[in-house]
Amino acid sequence: MINLDHAATTPVRPEVLEAMMPFFTECAANASSLYADGRAARQAVDHARIQLAKALNASAQEVYFTSGGSEADNWALFGITRALKGKKHIVTTAIEHHAVLHACDALEQLGWDVSLIGVDSEGLVDPEEVEKAIRPDTALVSVMMANNEIGTIQPIREIAQRAHAHGVWMHTDAVQAVGHIPVDVEELGIDLLSLSGHKFGGPKGIGALIVKKGVRLDNLIYGGAQERGMRAGTENTPGIVGLGKAAEIAAQELSVSQKKVESLRNYLMNAILFKIPDARINGSLTNRLPGNLHMTFSDADTSLLLMRLDMEGIAASAGSACAAGAVQRSHVMAAIGAPDGADLRMTIDTDNTQEEMDRTVTALMRILKG
Amino acid sequence: MINLDHAATTPVRPEVLEAMMPFFTECAANASSLYADGRAARQAVDHARIQLAKALNASAQEVYFTSGGSEADNWALFGITRALKGKKHIVTTAIEHHAVLHACDALEQLGWDVSLIGVDSEGLVDPEEVEKAIRPDTALVSVMMANNEIGTIQPIREIAQRAHAHGVWMHTDAVQAVGHIPVDVEELGIDLLSLSGHKFGGPKGIGALIVKKGVRLDNLIYGGAQERGMRAGTENTPGIVGLGKAAEIAAQELSVSQKKVESLRNYLMNAILFKIPDARINGSLTNRLPGNLHMTFSDADTSLLLMRLDMEGIAASAGSACAAGAVQRSHVMAAIGAPDGADLRMTIDTDNTQEEMDRTVTALMRILKG
Repeated sequence: MINLDHAATTPVRPEVLEAMMPFFTECAANASSLYADGRAARQAVDHARIQLAKALNASAQEVYFTSGGSEADNWALFGITRALKGKKHIVTTAIEHHAVLHACDALEQLGWDVSLIGVDSEGLVDPEEVEKAIRPDTALVSVMMANNEIGTIQPIREIAQRAHAHGVWMHTDAVQAVGHIPVDVEELGIDLLSLSGHKFGGPKGIGALIVKKGVRLDNLIYGGAQERGMRAGTENTPGIVGLGKAAEIAAQELSVSQKKVESLRNYLMNAILFKIPDARINGSLTNRLPGNLHMTFSDADTSLLLMRLDMEGIAASAGSACAAGAVQRSHVMAAIGAPDGADLRMTIDTDNTQEEMDRTVTALMRILKG
Repeated sequence: MINLDHAATTPVRPEVLEAMMPFFTECAANASSLYADGRAARQAVDHARIQLAKALNASAQEVYFTSGGSEADNWALFGITRALKGKKHIVTTAIEHHAVLHACDALEQLGWDVSLIGVDSEGLVDPEEVEKAIRPDTALVSVMMANNEIGTIQPIREIAQRAHAHGVWMHTDAVQAVGHIPVDVEELGIDLLSLSGHKFGGPKGIGALIVKKGVRLDNLIYGGAQERGMRAGTENTPGIVGLGKAAEIAAQELSVSQKKVESLRNYLMNAILFKIPDARINGSLTNRLPGNLHMTFSDADTSLLLMRLDMEGIAASAGSACAAGAVQRSHVMAAIGAPDGADLRMTIDTDNTQEEMDRTVTALMRILKG
């Protein structure tokens, strides 16, 4: 099997799984329990919090573990809007993940206004447009760091600066970015950042919301005193330990893995463009996740293309796995005004090889010719 | 180590961990992906959904996986109150878990009225009192199936009948009940039921909300189309598989494990009462979780008692792990009007032995004598 769908999920890294294992069985105590075994679990949670914080240049006190990226996105939006009474408006973009867009739909039903900023043909948000949309009653600007379909990386630092100039907090859905490009919340000026463990070698069912000191938000999940009273629920110790370890490894290897993945991606991209002349690249060539390649093939059908690739043992997708099986074309394709054709997202990671790229090109040629 | 804190959490059962393992690595695809590996993950999720549904006599379509019990409780409360426009009132009890009580606090801030029904000295809710509190604008009755501190099992069937007589839906937090006593949502007439995997040999970070057909509720977490659009976020395949397996095993072994655990609990209870005359049992002797023993020792200090037990290698708690470290006495102790003294919750499971019970009694005698 050739896995070209790493943006959907990644397998758990062996070192990560190894770090998690004791916390399923031998050291399975509740991390909130006060006896010896509970304290050992607590220590592991604290250590993972530091690992994740370091990877993002945040402080451990700014890390709040969640069940994943979608919960983190929903928490940021609902938490801020509930805390900031008197505010009534959110600025976001047309190409956000559905976890942001559908939460915004729900907020509209609760009486909030949402400004959806469009993007250019490469999927780039214009910071000036974001700033222009800010109103006195704006509670939050939410712009994703890197798009999950076409991989476009947004000018988050400049957008955050413009939001801050108006006293507005900045949230970024960094689910596709963390572990794949350098993310420094301090340098970027981010107030709230969502991330998900299984996108960079960690387990599924765990993520985090980074909340900078001074940001006020309400809970999404109320109950016990976990996560300093901000996110209730027994700590998922194995998941948290896995997330911390995955973040540590990804940060350590980033400079090398980024180059390797980008070079494989470019190799695949150039080969496809050379062999299949009517292939069109979607997104930006410069501001782009290293492992992302998103193309449209004219005169082809998306479902058929994916099915044929599957039969050839190649795992890829049209766009987000969260929307897989959808009948309509994606909102991202609509927002960039992509021409008609079969959409194909190929997302590469360090476990891919050049030989796999060659086999993919051959398969694509075979499929698209017949 | 003697683990007498199974109500806080249980280790993952070996068979459960074994079932989970492939989904971390070899079969790690996103369960929403359409290619072969994704379909295999989807099959595993579907299978777990059937396992869990069978264990509760629900249908698979009524199972919605969450990140745990707290999320399920919050979802039930926020989901119903958002869906039922025009309603303004909730009926619940004074001894609910904080996941329900603190969500109710938040709902009060959003303009909802909450009626908190008291309990008798055994922690029992009177169904008639629940019914009397129901108003034309009541959206939901939420009464836990079994209390997490004193183990009292509520007359859920009668409460549900009385709620239904007024056209009101019934939610029960069954986090402490599922896997430990028979739970049949059909027979009990439950509309919404929260459960958590790690309370009965499943992993942490996974739970479910059972939602009977016909019940209308909004999302707590919006985004992708997972869980039929009702709960966004990439499926936690290993967690879901583990939860399904744990539910299946617990249901198969229930009649035997219930008796074994109850007999160990009674053995410990009688030994303590015989050797430590000023020990007082909290909760009901008849309507009680089989593994729960909750006692108050007069003229003793809770923190000191727990610390000394920890030094003797015995893991126990005063009450909920979610509130461990709290300075105040628990809201459950206040609600039943417990006399002053040191509170001790000992929760027994199938991995405990009679010899451990003997050692616990000896340790308690040593500690409480001076």
